[in-house]
Amino acid sequence: MTDQMTRVILARRPTGAPVDEDFKLDTCPIPDPGEGEVLVRVHYMSLDPYMRGRMDDAKSYATPIPVGGTMEGGSVGEVIASNHPDFAPGDFAFGMFGWATHGVQPGKMIRKVDPAHGPITASLGVLGMPGFTGWYGLTQYGQPKEGETVVVAAATGPVGSMVGQLAKARGCRVVGVAGGPEKCKMAVETFGFDDCLDHRAYADAKEMREALASACPKGIDIYFENVAGKVLEGVLPRMNVGGRIPVCGMISWYNAGALGADAGGTKDQLPKMWRTILVNRLHVHGFIISDHWNSFPEFLREVGPMVASGKLKFVEDVAEGLENAPRAFMGLLEGRNKGKQVVKVI
Amino acid sequence: MTDQMTRVILARRPTGAPVDEDFKLDTCPIPDPGEGEVLVRVHYMSLDPYMRGRMDDAKSYATPIPVGGTMEGGSVGEVIASNHPDFAPGDFAFGMFGWATHGVQPGKMIRKVDPAHGPITASLGVLGMPGFTGWYGLTQYGQPKEGETVVVAAATGPVGSMVGQLAKARGCRVVGVAGGPEKCKMAVETFGFDDCLDHRAYADAKEMREALASACPKGIDIYFENVAGKVLEGVLPRMNVGGRIPVCGMISWYNAGALGADAGGTKDQLPKMWRTILVNRLHVHGFIISDHWNSFPEFLREVGPMVASGKLKFVEDVAEGLENAPRAFMGLLEGRNKGKQVVKVI
Repeated sequence: MTDQMTRVILARRPTGAPVDEDFKLDTCPIPDPGEGEVLVRVHYMSLDPYMRGRMDDAKSYATPIPVGGTMEGGSVGEVIASNHPDFAPGDFAFGMFGWATHGVQPGKMIRKVDPAHGPITASLGVLGMPGFTGWYGLTQYGQPKEGETVVVAAATGPVGSMVGQLAKARGCRVVGVAGGPEKCKMAVETFGFDDCLDHRAYADAKEMREALASACPKGIDIYFENVAGKVLEGVLPRMNVGGRIPVCGMISWYNAGALGADAGGTKDQLPKMWRTILVNRLHVHGFIISDHWNSFPEFLREVGPMVASGKLKFVEDVAEGLENAPRAFMGLLEGRNKGKQVVKVI
Repeated sequence: MTDQMTRVILARRPTGAPVDEDFKLDTCPIPDPGEGEVLVRVHYMSLDPYMRGRMDDAKSYATPIPVGGTMEGGSVGEVIASNHPDFAPGDFAFGMFGWATHGVQPGKMIRKVDPAHGPITASLGVLGMPGFTGWYGLTQYGQPKEGETVVVAAATGPVGSMVGQLAKARGCRVVGVAGGPEKCKMAVETFGFDDCLDHRAYADAKEMREALASACPKGIDIYFENVAGKVLEGVLPRMNVGGRIPVCGMISWYNAGALGADAGGTKDQLPKMWRTILVNRLHVHGFIISDHWNSFPEFLREVGPMVASGKLKFVEDVAEGLENAPRAFMGLLEGRNKGKQVVKVI
């Protein structure tokens, strides 16, 4: 057994879309767990759009990753040393161990994962942060009612597929938006969406709007926002009076630098949106899921059994090897993944 | 007594700011009240920013006024004939009688005003639709807590002055924004705001933002939106995590036609705002007060006594004569009024 570990560090801050040179594979000694800490050998790590925000130094809801620092992220692996009474070697645990083969975290900051309850990767997706995000935003802010119409983009991703399936279970019409015919097929056939629009088939917000109008003949009551851009512009004029927009992300704008001209905005966008919010009495709720961890047990109680019984489906896209994490991450930002993107580290 | 009445009709749809030629003074026979209807001789009518929206034919929350139709609006006057059991000649009543010396409305669509309870003009402002708008938006969507900071523009108007005084009564720091030193003085000295910024003193959103930063050292928890434009842009980056934005109007954009380039937008506004909503977990609530009339009795129960006791102040700006209503309305849209704008019709 070597005493060296491998990690991916932020080599420099990206300009726009990240490229290979923004990341660097690095080796360093495996740290010893301190008082109350646990050392984990990572098996799978999660890749999520929010990580793009951490690479910038703009003010956000979390501290930026310093240049030279380990890329942040959640992962799941086997405990190999523990100074915390709740964890013993051989246990599996989820924690923010970063893009790395090994990681140390305080025992109180990680949670145990039982491999008997299904694949451990579920802790990164359907039963982890992304699934929880979909559940919390839809139930808390979306408040779906039977017969309403729900639109969710990134429909086959771990957030979108959770939102769509939960909304279906509550009797809503669910229309997804995804990139490419293959994903649209997956949204309908695997996840049970009523319809799914391929945003690549529409040149601009106007075409997107027309397609949404056909797919949502009774308008849109809930738009679960995780992509922004063209989809947002297409959705807004179709929102029904009293509509709700939970906002948990805006992946289409993440690579747009300081969100300036590159974001593809037009001069009248804000006034138009503001007017729509007023005229259609919309309720827009930004939320960051890390504010709401105290609801996580409630989420697991509701969704855990749905996953165990197979009622709630999930799809994973597995990249092989830590060294391929940067490329898989770039693909995620471009929508090349099919389902929840994870990296097999061991 | 003549059997003719005078009214102001929409002569044509305005392009941008309304001008004299968009209105026309007209005479017509005084209508007879039908079954269940009441005829009123108007004493005072209200001028409100929402009327600008009714002059356009864009989709909005209410039907546009047809060209040639009477300008819409609320007014208060004396009942001169009644076919409804709740109203008798000599009673005073508030209703949507339009810009006119006389009007007929169904008895169930109007409400009695008791002159013994104070000036009847209060039914147009502090105890009418504007006051109710401020009360509902602040209490329902703003949910002010002691020690929080509230920003409200059009601070000396009937909505803004209500919001500010109620927020003060709930222990908030209240910062107004108004046009010109005289109004700022009124906001602080008459309405008890902690501070009031003169938006004319700031060239752009950046200067506005800096002034707000000084006036709101602990950030902004509630922004009561009724003006949009530069104030909105200045406020957004200063919003605290979990902040609330009730949106009841956007007067600075009302004259901007189809809200295109004239609205003074920039290409990156929408992405920037959307990012702020996410990062700062803001809650934005569009609302139209006419959805909420069933809460009006609750409003009167709370605010009526505060007005009667003099604890809650109000200021009125009275234009003389129906023929001067168009000019007074143009002045309102430009912020030339001091306090609630009404027109003395009789």
